[in-house]
Amino acid sequence: MKAVRVHSYGKRPTVDDVPEPTVSGPFDVLVQVGAAGLCRTDLHIIEGQWAEKSGVKLPYVIGHENAGWVREIGSAVTNVAVGDAVILHPLVTCGLCRACRSGDDVHCENSRFPGIDCAGGMAEYLLTSARSVVKLAEGLEPAAVAALADAGLTAYHAVRKAVPLLYPGTTCVVIGAGGLGHIGIQCLLAMTAAHVVVVDPSEAARDLARQLGAHHVTDRTDDLRDSAHVVLDFVGEQGAEAEGLAMTRRAGSYYVIGYGGKVDIPTIDLISTERNIVGNLVGSYNDLDELMTLAAQGRVTLHTRTYPLSAVNEAMDDLELGRLQGRGILVPSTT
Amino acid sequence: MKAVRVHSYGKRPTVDDVPEPTVSGPFDVLVQVGAAGLCRTDLHIIEGQWAEKSGVKLPYVIGHENAGWVREIGSAVTNVAVGDAVILHPLVTCGLCRACRSGDDVHCENSRFPGIDCAGGMAEYLLTSARSVVKLAEGLEPAAVAALADAGLTAYHAVRKAVPLLYPGTTCVVIGAGGLGHIGIQCLLAMTAAHVVVVDPSEAARDLARQLGAHHVTDRTDDLRDSAHVVLDFVGEQGAEAEGLAMTRRAGSYYVIGYGGKVDIPTIDLISTERNIVGNLVGSYNDLDELMTLAAQGRVTLHTRTYPLSAVNEAMDDLELGRLQGRGILVPSTT
Amino acid sequence: MKAVRVHSYGKRPTVDDVPEPTVSGPFDVLVQVGAAGLCRTDLHIIEGQWAEKSGVKLPYVIGHENAGWVREIGSAVTNVAVGDAVILHPLVTCGLCRACRSGDDVHCENSRFPGIDCAGGMAEYLLTSARSVVKLAEGLEPAAVAALADAGLTAYHAVRKAVPLLYPGTTCVVIGAGGLGHIGIQCLLAMTAAHVVVVDPSEAARDLARQLGAHHVTDRTDDLRDSAHVVLDFVGEQGAEAEGLAMTRRAGSYYVIGYGGKVDIPTIDLISTERNIVGNLVGSYNDLDELMTLAAQGRVTLHTRTYPLSAVNEAMDDLELGRLQGRGILVPSTT
Amino acid sequence: MKAVRVHSYGKRPTVDDVPEPTVSGPFDVLVQVGAAGLCRTDLHIIEGQWAEKSGVKLPYVIGHENAGWVREIGSAVTNVAVGDAVILHPLVTCGLCRACRSGDDVHCENSRFPGIDCAGGMAEYLLTSARSVVKLAEGLEPAAVAALADAGLTAYHAVRKAVPLLYPGTTCVVIGAGGLGHIGIQCLLAMTAAHVVVVDPSEAARDLARQLGAHHVTDRTDDLRDSAHVVLDFVGEQGAEAEGLAMTRRAGSYYVIGYGGKVDIPTIDLISTERNIVGNLVGSYNDLDELMTLAAQGRVTLHTRTYPLSAVNEAMDDLELGRLQGRGILVPSTT
Repeated sequence: MKAVRVHSYGKRPTVDDVPEPTVSGPFDVLVQVGAAGLCRTDLHIIEGQWAEKSGVKLPYVIGHENAGWVREIGSAVTNVAVGDAVILHPLVTCGLCRACRSGDDVHCENSRFPGIDCAGGMAEYLLTSARSVVKLAEGLEPAAVAALADAGLTAYHAVRKAVPLLYPGTTCVVIGAGGLGHIGIQCLLAMTAAHVVVVDPSEAARDLARQLGAHHVTDRTDDLRDSAHVVLDFVGEQGAEAEGLAMTRRAGSYYVIGYGGKVDIPTIDLISTERNIVGNLVGSYNDLDELMTLAAQGRVTLHTRTYPLSAVNEAMDDLELGRLQGRGILVPSTT
Repeated sequence: MKAVRVHSYGKRPTVDDVPEPTVSGPFDVLVQVGAAGLCRTDLHIIEGQWAEKSGVKLPYVIGHENAGWVREIGSAVTNVAVGDAVILHPLVTCGLCRACRSGDDVHCENSRFPGIDCAGGMAEYLLTSARSVVKLAEGLEPAAVAALADAGLTAYHAVRKAVPLLYPGTTCVVIGAGGLGHIGIQCLLAMTAAHVVVVDPSEAARDLARQLGAHHVTDRTDDLRDSAHVVLDFVGEQGAEAEGLAMTRRAGSYYVIGYGGKVDIPTIDLISTERNIVGNLVGSYNDLDELMTLAAQGRVTLHTRTYPLSAVNEAMDDLELGRLQGRGILVPSTT
Repeated sequence: MKAVRVHSYGKRPTVDDVPEPTVSGPFDVLVQVGAAGLCRTDLHIIEGQWAEKSGVKLPYVIGHENAGWVREIGSAVTNVAVGDAVILHPLVTCGLCRACRSGDDVHCENSRFPGIDCAGGMAEYLLTSARSVVKLAEGLEPAAVAALADAGLTAYHAVRKAVPLLYPGTTCVVIGAGGLGHIGIQCLLAMTAAHVVVVDPSEAARDLARQLGAHHVTDRTDDLRDSAHVVLDFVGEQGAEAEGLAMTRRAGSYYVIGYGGKVDIPTIDLISTERNIVGNLVGSYNDLDELMTLAAQGRVTLHTRTYPLSAVNEAMDDLELGRLQGRGILVPSTT
Repeated sequence: MKAVRVHSYGKRPTVDDVPEPTVSGPFDVLVQVGAAGLCRTDLHIIEGQWAEKSGVKLPYVIGHENAGWVREIGSAVTNVAVGDAVILHPLVTCGLCRACRSGDDVHCENSRFPGIDCAGGMAEYLLTSARSVVKLAEGLEPAAVAALADAGLTAYHAVRKAVPLLYPGTTCVVIGAGGLGHIGIQCLLAMTAAHVVVVDPSEAARDLARQLGAHHVTDRTDDLRDSAHVVLDFVGEQGAEAEGLAMTRRAGSYYVIGYGGKVDIPTIDLISTERNIVGNLVGSYNDLDELMTLAAQGRVTLHTRTYPLSAVNEAMDDLELGRLQGRGILVPSTT
């Protein structure tokens, strides 16, 4: 089959012919890839930023935002059948540790991350586990939802955690209406009656936020001081951290989702107003299942642009040079 | 009556004769002070550190940790009667704002703080509100519990918030077994089955922690890295902030209670492990009521040393020079 | 002023001239009544069903769903000002007991219920407490929201409690799309992404449910067996109790809101599926505040028909004889 | 190996020689049984009460409360190793359904119940799954804890769910201090500071409750009316249901754990006081893990009497005729 492999850090990946993976274990699921989302992390992998952390051996197949169709299943698989359209949770988890047993499978003590530390999904086929596949409702196409597998799931997870704080009359400030943020806005509007305020310096991003239904959209952060019960910071760097903290009111919560910068605040400022800082990782399997419900209901939609698998480097150039509106999706040919 | 008043910042307070306060409003409660706890904040007030923040006019009566007996009540008071022994919540709150209506009266939008921004309780009598008095169970003496009104209440509140995270099998690290920390340890042991680890550089503090029943007591923080589901940091300065954060495990929570230092952490470190930083203020009225239940059950006790009201400056010297074991309590004479 | 008073149980109330109430206490609030909702409970009061339970002395003014304008306030009132449009929480609560201090003021140990056990609001003026008035946002008219004060608040409260159970992908069955139920449907759609199913034998009620946006509307309860994560039973009698329980799935919850019938279920059926039965009373002050936010956002609206105060008996006849579509609202003349 | 098998309903089981089970799947775990608890359900199985419900084919091995030592593991097992002492969760669950993915594995859509619907653990060896084995801490012996696998786990689970309601100052009434109840009492005392009241008509049971540390022990239920924030009913029949409901106070919760009777209450009585009725099943895998922590800490202990496997019918007679103090435990000989 065709697959996008990294052979050497700092060099462009190539589309190679490699053997198809095969089902051997009872929980194995072989998926024909229908769509592979392209993510900034893929650029970082190629640059070598993840080399040490992942410890993966080159060459290997990248791609960690996938959806497709089940082509073969192991003997113990009960949650999907051959032919089902599925989206893949980014992690393959053990199902045995405390975290997995609690629904917090993202904190699994023995997880793998295909496309990061083992073979991923920019390929015609991907071998995964029954624990990682969520069946798509009728009408949902792999290419339309693949990018929800990682970016969307992270946004959903943060919003889901914040829902209990966002009763009618509360204000939620969203910092950044980009790839993650514009999903977060849709999730907030679907699951809460909070007043949703969006801050973004980009006019295009603000326009998108308005179209999605945000109640107040602005590029001025100083008006928002002490205003928010919850701040969802999808940027997490370049000053957003300090601004986000300053926007939370007494007893409010600042959710860190984007990263790159740092939180730097005197302990007295946390104490005297009793505020919280909440870290957020990608969502759980159940979170992905719930997000697919919102997608099937039409409450969460994505802007995407598709490329054939062979155009992977063109797509990466478009992403890197800012020529890509919405998410880039690689679609293997289906001959 | 006799009362301890600050006349000039930077100078010692004096014990003056002042008029007794009187009941005028329907929710007023006049309390004969049985005990007034002495707190490091009192030293800071005298030094002038609170001058600008409180905006109080000199001279005024200090003292914000009080217990005593009800001597007179306003027409609408239903929760206490003349003769009742009571402890005083440190704030006088409005009862009308969203926070008061939610049980979060500490975040009241219209509160006063007697002893900080108006007349306090280092005096023979103190005028307060029905909303601030918690009736003591039979057998509880004002002098034994007064210091729980502020220091103890803060420790209790943090533990109470952490209880849902501390199921059997979890670990809670307590940083600092001093004035607040040693109450926190007792609250943890009363309300959870968590494994309680205490870190303190002082041998006396560690001895106290052991006597109280802590499961593991140490002065070595490096062994505790990534070990705690919850860290309760009663120090919050001089490196405890960074150590406390380093002790929390994946998905763990770092509770800031002490202050003076700062939290300084890259956003990626909060994201990648999905950790939380939780600010903590003094507890609510209901928290104080619950803490009094623990005190009445004998599960929370305090080490105190009593002084007559006239010895206020001697007591302050003992506190400032580290000669005071346990909490200093001023007891007005009751002739 | 004019006021609707009951003089003798079993006889029609009359519109009498009575003295205007006056402000005397510091938390008193005098409200010029803009609208008084008419409720089936008013019919029951007149019939004498509440005589023993309320212990009220005749004659007295009925009316317990009110909104209007503040005309005078006591010295300690900080949450409203003269001229403000307000809606009245049905209870006047003490603010001092554990329940009031927890935000559960409905369980206040010392509450009064104007219109039931003391003078109510079918009158030109009503004396209430600062603790019972919620300020209306600009644009909200007393006549449009008065019926939310009791009926709507009960529906909102039940939905609010169920929100944490209603994540995307869950099903909520609403039994009864009448006075309370049609508010409940709107609250569900505003605050959750759950699949909302409505069961009602009346075609008019089903039409209303569809217009409000319910996802599935039916008169057949047998198709819904074991289907619901949450059942909100706004009927609570005539078989709805047993049907409602049968509709809940494993680990599901049956919320009882309507009443008149009884819950009758073998303990083994509760155990083996681990289901919950949840009682629901009217909402808290904060619930009413949140519901007013939904009303101001246009997410919750009511069908009403207004009558002058002098037409109270005509309105009661219309209610009793089923000639009243939507809620009947008495509007005192404002000369 | 030796195993206790039922050949015909209504007849005594026999100790037969049967083939040892063997590991074939990757998550299989072969356990050498160290102890098999004897339960009233075993009597009911033999009588045929479960014949239709379980659909099991005779003959088959009974026994559903087991602990022992791991003797062989499948290729994918990471949570236990050969030689580990383990206790077995009563269910074997799929790990793939929503319930399993949420930590509510007891509501697994594809579970088996060894000893009920397939071969159980009154035998020398039992084949189970990695998802069902909890490793015992050093010092915990299989024979000492086996009965916690089902009876104890049910009690723990109910208490665990009630913990958030049981803050200091609340009252929890335990109905029945027998097999489950005496574990529940220990769990309450370990995890809460609530006032624990125990009601039991048996003097021996009341003595045990007192020894375990219950704060108030009685055989008079009428004194307890409206007294409890939480009632844990371990009886659930013969009037305990109505008494339990009557003991809950406003906004209180009645937890049904025992069964046999029925809940029968007018909806108005649930509404007007806003009370809850909470069904309770056996606990989850994580619950069992937590309970083993309490056992290892010495906070939960069991009274047991051991029998050799060959004395199964003698043990059953003792149970049936009320000659058994504490739990009967079958111990296969270990030659």
